[in-house]
Amino acid sequence: MIGASTAIAGVGATDFSSDSGRSELQLALEAILAALEDAGVSPEDVDGMVTYTLDTSPEWEIARNMGTGPLTFFNRVPHGGGAACGTIAQAVMAVKSGAASTVVCYRAFNERSGRRFGIGPQEGNAPTAEMVHLGWHRPYGHLSAGSWVGMYARRYMAKYGATSADFGRVTVAMRQWAATNPAARFFERPLTLEEHQASRWIAEPLRLLDCCLESDGGVAFVVTSLERARDLRKPPVVVSSVGQISAPGQERMTGYYLRDDLTRLPEVEMLGGQLWRESGRSRSDVDVAVVYDHFTPMVLMQLEALGFCAPGEAAAFVADGHLGRDGSLPTNPNGGQLGEAYIHGMNGIAEAARQVRGESVNQVASVETALVTSGTGVPTSAMILTADTDRP
Amino acid sequence: MIGASTAIAGVGATDFSSDSGRSELQLALEAILAALEDAGVSPEDVDGMVTYTLDTSPEWEIARNMGTGPLTFFNRVPHGGGAACGTIAQAVMAVKSGAASTVVCYRAFNERSGRRFGIGPQEGNAPTAEMVHLGWHRPYGHLSAGSWVGMYARRYMAKYGATSADFGRVTVAMRQWAATNPAARFFERPLTLEEHQASRWIAEPLRLLDCCLESDGGVAFVVTSLERARDLRKPPVVVSSVGQISAPGQERMTGYYLRDDLTRLPEVEMLGGQLWRESGRSRSDVDVAVVYDHFTPMVLMQLEALGFCAPGEAAAFVADGHLGRDGSLPTNPNGGQLGEAYIHGMNGIAEAARQVRGESVNQVASVETALVTSGTGVPTSAMILTADTDRP
Repeated sequence: MIGASTAIAGVGATDFSSDSGRSELQLALEAILAALEDAGVSPEDVDGMVTYTLDTSPEWEIARNMGTGPLTFFNRVPHGGGAACGTIAQAVMAVKSGAASTVVCYRAFNERSGRRFGIGPQEGNAPTAEMVHLGWHRPYGHLSAGSWVGMYARRYMAKYGATSADFGRVTVAMRQWAATNPAARFFERPLTLEEHQASRWIAEPLRLLDCCLESDGGVAFVVTSLERARDLRKPPVVVSSVGQISAPGQERMTGYYLRDDLTRLPEVEMLGGQLWRESGRSRSDVDVAVVYDHFTPMVLMQLEALGFCAPGEAAAFVADGHLGRDGSLPTNPNGGQLGEAYIHGMNGIAEAARQVRGESVNQVASVETALVTSGTGVPTSAMILTADTDRP
Repeated sequence: MIGASTAIAGVGATDFSSDSGRSELQLALEAILAALEDAGVSPEDVDGMVTYTLDTSPEWEIARNMGTGPLTFFNRVPHGGGAACGTIAQAVMAVKSGAASTVVCYRAFNERSGRRFGIGPQEGNAPTAEMVHLGWHRPYGHLSAGSWVGMYARRYMAKYGATSADFGRVTVAMRQWAATNPAARFFERPLTLEEHQASRWIAEPLRLLDCCLESDGGVAFVVTSLERARDLRKPPVVVSSVGQISAPGQERMTGYYLRDDLTRLPEVEMLGGQLWRESGRSRSDVDVAVVYDHFTPMVLMQLEALGFCAPGEAAAFVADGHLGRDGSLPTNPNGGQLGEAYIHGMNGIAEAARQVRGESVNQVASVETALVTSGTGVPTSAMILTADTDRP
């Protein structure tokens, strides 16, 4: 766990759509240039870049197209949405260790109009460790994220008596937020629980509306030292604590056999403990949460793993309206990936940063501390962002 | 550029072969367990892992098979052999910033018996930035690394009057070293220049014996703080300076149009300058060099980029025997990737570490400082390793 002396100084995004009409490289560049503009930093100042292993736009293409000087730091973070806060973690490490001073984190894809993750195996059949591993799952129809997550969801229902409606209330809460966010795919389109319950099965017990959107778009950030961020255009969003975890028994969304309790997320539990410890914040300090919502049941499990509810009590917590505008834990005020767009978690980080700055369209009152999580069931990452209250 | 307070504490490798008979995961585990044994560190102590984006064995598979505790740091380094020292750079950043304390860097593949890089395009045809880029090169037969490097080599010949024999002398020097290294593929098989000259064209002006081996195998390292390394089994190999560079006009081995002079390697020039500056060492301090030798002409260009020779003079430098046992710059004493094996640069790092420890089979006398480079023509990395002479 690292943090405290670094900040997000710039936030940028493209529009979110189901058919961008542009290349993934174009989307990445648009998002990055917007983030640089937001920070008031020029492309020549950028000396480090981080993206996902799944991103198709290499940093040298970005640098060349954008007119960046030499890069002295670059890497990629694996495991899909688990990488979201992990990109910020890499940037923080680079800045803290002196490897780079101005790092761009980005993720851009045509996940709806191009390669869709939900359509099943696309990795080929090379005799790699991952393919051998998946060979134990694919013959049983476990071909995509929805099918893997369905297993966790089913166990959660069996153990705690949760219902499809309990999952649906997560989507309803997200769509409520999205309805007042003009950037959201579901702007002005709130959802009723009845509509959720009428939506078709994708991988039982997951309905269509338990699954996040598929979206085209890009999001980018500028990370630099807190000291430097204070001299830039916008108020710094302090990376108070950020970390990655790959927990014992970790697999890539298929951890059914090695763990005693499928309804728990040990990597999220560990991250939570570390975040509170390192940031000096507690659960009650969290003014806004961004909880990775690729699938509704995982939101419930994350709320429990982070200690906002006791095990099995998240459904009631959601039903009581705690995730909403007047709740005790306003969550995903952008509408989340169920309501705004699915940009692999990066749009959630953007919303957390906006909330800390006080510039969100769905602004929560006086936000000082935001919690952000990343993809679940995989090696993942999380962070605490805070306002720059210690400014000298 | 970062370094100085961290060290390589363990070095491990498998045998090198053309048909390992084991999975890439097995090779990775063998190399890592050997590195941990070498350092005297147990698998449970490992809390970070780094490998190449091209590696097929994810850290969670490694961790699970090896019995590692939670990992708090993991990423991947892109650009094939350009990643070699880059993996050490990531580990150093993690240790310096506090993200992890004991990081394993690894690379293992069946590059000869499995997926061979030399057989041409294997990336599919998705409309990604890299595929669009390669669309400008593939129609002209530029399908693999050899064909790309041939362009640089041809220009070098035209500009400086270099000949195929000049390239061949690099291979002869490497094979001389390999001949006395039992771990080398070419152990006891030195090469004559005549044999080099008789070898067939791969991509003119590159002959078969200008191209590195294709090999199965794995290499791994344990990186930790210098302070902790001093308490471990073997003398620390200090990472005195390590860095990555993606230079202006950078492409992935196809930078023919954006750069004024194809015979220069600006990323290596920049790395060199930074290494000397940060490590406080100069060229004359280098007791042993490990120069990335995927293709012979690139060795010449690197010697020039690093300032060991003036532009155009590396061929004479090699002909004068400077890379050999009694030369002024003993280079690749393991036999390099032309003589020992092609493990994507990681076996060169292992040799540099052994030289600093004084435990190589081809030990150079009293090595205090070793220079290591990584793949060329791509965003790359380099480092200076030194003996622990400042030990209190």
